[in-house]
Amino acid sequence: MRDDVRGAPDIGAIEAAAGRLAGTAVVTPLLSSPFLDEVAGRPVHVKAECLQKTGSFKFRGAWSAVSALPEGVRGVIACSSGNHAQGVALAARMRGLPAVIVMPADAPRTKRENTAALGAEVVLHDRTGEDRDALTERLASERGLHLVRPFDDADVIAGQGTCGLEIAVQAAAAGVSTGTVLTCCGGGGLTAGLALALEARAPGLRVRPVEPAGYDDAGRSLAAGTILRNEAAPPSICDAILTPAPGRLTFPVMRRLCGPGLAVSDEEAGRAVAAAFSRVKLVLEPGGAVALAAALFRGDALAPGPVIVTASGGNVDAALFADILTRYGDRP
Amino acid sequence: MRDDVRGAPDIGAIEAAAGRLAGTAVVTPLLSSPFLDEVAGRPVHVKAECLQKTGSFKFRGAWSAVSALPEGVRGVIACSSGNHAQGVALAARMRGLPAVIVMPADAPRTKRENTAALGAEVVLHDRTGEDRDALTERLASERGLHLVRPFDDADVIAGQGTCGLEIAVQAAAAGVSTGTVLTCCGGGGLTAGLALALEARAPGLRVRPVEPAGYDDAGRSLAAGTILRNEAAPPSICDAILTPAPGRLTFPVMRRLCGPGLAVSDEEAGRAVAAAFSRVKLVLEPGGAVALAAALFRGDALAPGPVIVTASGGNVDAALFADILTRYGDRP
Repeated sequence: MRDDVRGAPDIGAIEAAAGRLAGTAVVTPLLSSPFLDEVAGRPVHVKAECLQKTGSFKFRGAWSAVSALPEGVRGVIACSSGNHAQGVALAARMRGLPAVIVMPADAPRTKRENTAALGAEVVLHDRTGEDRDALTERLASERGLHLVRPFDDADVIAGQGTCGLEIAVQAAAAGVSTGTVLTCCGGGGLTAGLALALEARAPGLRVRPVEPAGYDDAGRSLAAGTILRNEAAPPSICDAILTPAPGRLTFPVMRRLCGPGLAVSDEEAGRAVAAAFSRVKLVLEPGGAVALAAALFRGDALAPGPVIVTASGGNVDAALFADILTRYGDRP
Repeated sequence: MRDDVRGAPDIGAIEAAAGRLAGTAVVTPLLSSPFLDEVAGRPVHVKAECLQKTGSFKFRGAWSAVSALPEGVRGVIACSSGNHAQGVALAARMRGLPAVIVMPADAPRTKRENTAALGAEVVLHDRTGEDRDALTERLASERGLHLVRPFDDADVIAGQGTCGLEIAVQAAAAGVSTGTVLTCCGGGGLTAGLALALEARAPGLRVRPVEPAGYDDAGRSLAAGTILRNEAAPPSICDAILTPAPGRLTFPVMRRLCGPGLAVSDEEAGRAVAAAFSRVKLVLEPGGAVALAAALFRGDALAPGPVIVTASGGNVDAALFADILTRYGDRP
């Protein structure tokens, strides 16, 4: 188990991560649709991270961290509801390392099965019962495994930051030099990574985290200037980003660089899933659609000008996706 | 109306089209998934043309043709079940030209509504009744509109060929220099364009057209060495590629350059839609999934080695997509 939690990465570390990811991670496209622009009342650009390997941006951070491990590591362990799990499982397989993934027993079936199919040993825990961090640390210690944290890890944040490097280039090509970058936010790894990359490469783009209503710990923490936790745990279809609080490494970055947070309802997330289906032909999971939801339905809370949204993941069970389409059709 | 149907384009014309499309069309990614590889028993690469503007590769050919029109053109007209329609509608709007689109009355609602929403005048015709070509020519003549043919047009074929230029670069980056390119095939514009581009830029990749069972006119024509038409018109969910026969310009190219055709059932197309949903997070319409279906379910008819498939379109109604997911789940 790794004890040296370093500070957040700098742009050099993000560039170095980009070097490790080159030729391995997908350079995901920045998509648009006149129909999304019309609903939002402004130009909307969608960074299609659901097309990343394992179906979410999490592969970036996972490969950044796993590829940086020294020779002789015995294996890796991670704790995740599913997207970090799959990213770490594939990254470990690509390096020929065993992986143990601790997942909540109620994680979506697709995520559990894919993680196992990628060769990882899946250990299920009860989300409301035993302490998953304690369980993970015990397993790491017993088996001598390296813990790949989901967001409070400099190499992981640097990997997520590579998404920001791509956005900087793609936004410039699309003629966007000032505007808002809305990003789906759990613990803040992607949010912090984007903010650091854009600070250096596209300083006219301001990052704002978007969370599910009831899980707006990052937004409330930003407003308070200190880390706050979510107290209640209401049901939500946005399983990917139901984290309790922003991270020790990620929050200071967000506080320094990000604009205020936004929160959207499950219904808005579902409508954004339907809009991504019909308008840019992307499969998004609800937690990966909250940024698009904010772009479409929270325009009054945004500064004028174009918006770039991260479509951060697409690992959604077929039954839920079919239900969302049946409920919301193909119109936002 | 244009009478000078030129011959098929050469690589120079395809490169020129690429110049006109640069910065306007999406450079679509080439995606993969270890799960698709496992089902197919070989490496599978998916060219995600559903992410193209208007949701299908057709925008390439439409913009190639419309952007090449001389000044002073009064407007354009096209005849299409929906994807060429949307491509021409957007291309015309981008050039500030009026567009008239003749569509079958039974085209998917999404396609009809989107075509109209892109500013085109939609004229519906009865697929089984009046002669749509005669109707289109009459309107073109009466109103002085330039006809943008769906495939038998050198500029359109050149535009579709730009997809092949991208495949050549992306396949090389993925380490693929020899293999099979399976492509969804209607009238053969994409098939011929790909074949011409790859002949020049990646001659180790052989193109093979894939069609819906009952609409395998290209495959039967290739086998016979002459253009054959589909006689029966069985029901099919693959509305995008239910063309009666390969084109006068496209067939000679296919005959010279392509391998034998393949045909898949509606069920196989549906299962491929479900696989693309779960494995590469793409929304495909059934007609845009037949090449993937052949990769997954027709391996015994393919030469050994990697396969690249075009995922040619994603304009599918939400109700049909939900039905496919409910029917086939998220496993091929």
